[in-house]
Amino acid sequence: MKLGIIGSGQLGLMMILEGKRLGLKFNVIDASTNGPASRIADRSFTYDQYREFVDDSDFITYEFEHVDERVLNYADKMGKLRPGLFPVELKRDRSGEKLFLKEKKLPVGPFEVAEDAATALRLGQAYENAVIKSTHGGYDGKGQYYVRDGRLSQTLPEGKYVVEEFVRFDFEASIIGARDENGRITFYDPSLNVNRHGMLYYNVAPIEDFGMRDIAGRLMRELGYIGVLGVEFFILNGKAYINEFAPRVHNTGHHTLMGTSVSQFEQHVRAVCGFPLAQPLLYRPSGILNIVGIEPGENQINNILEMEETQYFWYGKNGVRRRRKVGHVNTAGESFDSVKNKIEELSRIVYGENPDDYFLD
Amino acid sequence: MKLGIIGSGQLGLMMILEGKRLGLKFNVIDASTNGPASRIADRSFTYDQYREFVDDSDFITYEFEHVDERVLNYADKMGKLRPGLFPVELKRDRSGEKLFLKEKKLPVGPFEVAEDAATALRLGQAYENAVIKSTHGGYDGKGQYYVRDGRLSQTLPEGKYVVEEFVRFDFEASIIGARDENGRITFYDPSLNVNRHGMLYYNVAPIEDFGMRDIAGRLMRELGYIGVLGVEFFILNGKAYINEFAPRVHNTGHHTLMGTSVSQFEQHVRAVCGFPLAQPLLYRPSGILNIVGIEPGENQINNILEMEETQYFWYGKNGVRRRRKVGHVNTAGESFDSVKNKIEELSRIVYGENPDDYFLD
Repeated sequence: MKLGIIGSGQLGLMMILEGKRLGLKFNVIDASTNGPASRIADRSFTYDQYREFVDDSDFITYEFEHVDERVLNYADKMGKLRPGLFPVELKRDRSGEKLFLKEKKLPVGPFEVAEDAATALRLGQAYENAVIKSTHGGYDGKGQYYVRDGRLSQTLPEGKYVVEEFVRFDFEASIIGARDENGRITFYDPSLNVNRHGMLYYNVAPIEDFGMRDIAGRLMRELGYIGVLGVEFFILNGKAYINEFAPRVHNTGHHTLMGTSVSQFEQHVRAVCGFPLAQPLLYRPSGILNIVGIEPGENQINNILEMEETQYFWYGKNGVRRRRKVGHVNTAGESFDSVKNKIEELSRIVYGENPDDYFLD
Repeated sequence: MKLGIIGSGQLGLMMILEGKRLGLKFNVIDASTNGPASRIADRSFTYDQYREFVDDSDFITYEFEHVDERVLNYADKMGKLRPGLFPVELKRDRSGEKLFLKEKKLPVGPFEVAEDAATALRLGQAYENAVIKSTHGGYDGKGQYYVRDGRLSQTLPEGKYVVEEFVRFDFEASIIGARDENGRITFYDPSLNVNRHGMLYYNVAPIEDFGMRDIAGRLMRELGYIGVLGVEFFILNGKAYINEFAPRVHNTGHHTLMGTSVSQFEQHVRAVCGFPLAQPLLYRPSGILNIVGIEPGENQINNILEMEETQYFWYGKNGVRRRRKVGHVNTAGESFDSVKNKIEELSRIVYGENPDDYFLD
């Protein structure tokens, strides 16, 4: 069986490393053939070869929402695209995602859709504190503008926006779910997520549920979803509100590579290729530290690997720059707190005292 | 950093899948370039390109003892071969391995070396019950002849032999150790091994130590070893006797792919490339069932994956035949016994009631 992956980044790379054990072959397509996933794929394609890529694959999935439309549309037309075209279409227009969640009565914070910048500013000022998010092309904190006490932090370019009331939530969390073609649903234990400037800095699992399983389950059913889905939440007074979802394996699910009976990557491959889902079992509290915008040197890598229960992932991207995710460290430990402490130590090894330097533009 | 692997079978494949996360590049050399490991290597070579392969790699290791001598010798000459030439030379002549163990006062059962078939037969008959093993080319039960009650089971071809007294040991076991370039040594929990016709059928960890850590540690120090080493033992009346060792990752270490904090494959890559060793931690009793000589069909694979805590490995070799290892299943569970029960169920799924059919010539 051949699985085609649209996108050649770290998510595709780990999908191949974890899915290869099942004896599958992997095709990868992207703008170039030297991304991390392309280099270990059985066959690599560029977007102009999209028909050949789809025709040569039994199933097609994506590791990123912002990819060439021709390959998505053709894969969908051929009935091979999983999780399908609809979830990725929702993600391509942030207002579509928000309106869908609201329509399906899934919990989201207060928001409005603005067709132009002036309306967005007016709506943002009405909330007093707000985040104004571009409806197109925004991820990892890109295309976001803040209104604080009625004042905009920087110039708002012309465009369509989703304006969200800025809520002082207690913390951020996420859950990774999976649904197979027969509608069976499984979940990983949810994690606490700590972000910096809109990008994941670290996360730790397990935490309490706060209703996340129920919400993510309803979302997957409403979407007729097949595959792994990541859902990010704001937690406020013990209640979970969807921030956004990712119709793919997710950065907050990387901790499942260590200390869990099955990784999110294998689970996604199982789901999209029609294999039975595994029932994930967390053997050990675990988490990750993202490596963003910095290449650890030999001493740092040695210090990371000398710590107990760590795994070092380096994606081998073509160049390191600020705000670019270039690797991560998995760790596990006796308790949630011991994992959190380890991650703080790992952060000092990787970033020194100022992680912000690498997460800022 | 680039690691070169001599041999392109499943051990090399899993070394790449597990070691790739460290950001390494992998070269593979073998007689052909379509083995399981060659197909995902960054670069594949055939034996006539042995100089280019060695020159292009920072370190060289092997996943099999019976490989082209030119590449071993040249890698050794260039100071890149790990665990080195000596352990593999010992393995190429079984008498050398046995005499080395005896000389170093490591516990082995009674044996004699015979320079020809007639002497071997005489020595075997003197033991009454004996195993006569060809000194060259024997592994997975190949080149072995049995003397029972003084009678030889089949014709003994001319050649050099090791003649071992056949001991009715209580069971077989093994331990996977690792030693780094600074002499630091770590161990995985030892496993109980169940063989059929000289090939591993299944194994389960953890079991008691029976002195195996001490013996394997002494062996690694005597060999000046760098890398992962598998040592197989006979256990008799609570005492461990070395059966043989493998200077590489080992079939009885595959269970470390699930339920352990670090796999033997990553550990080997860490050791040979000069990264710090991990201290392996067994999160959960675990074991494997080997898949030998049979290709499970879709229903069988689904049944395997539907069981709790299982991973299915299919190596993608070029053809399935009797006595060929073509895959394995990892499983884990609450206790040693529950893992053993699961493996028995897995065996019925894979082999039906007669596993012997696939382990016999």
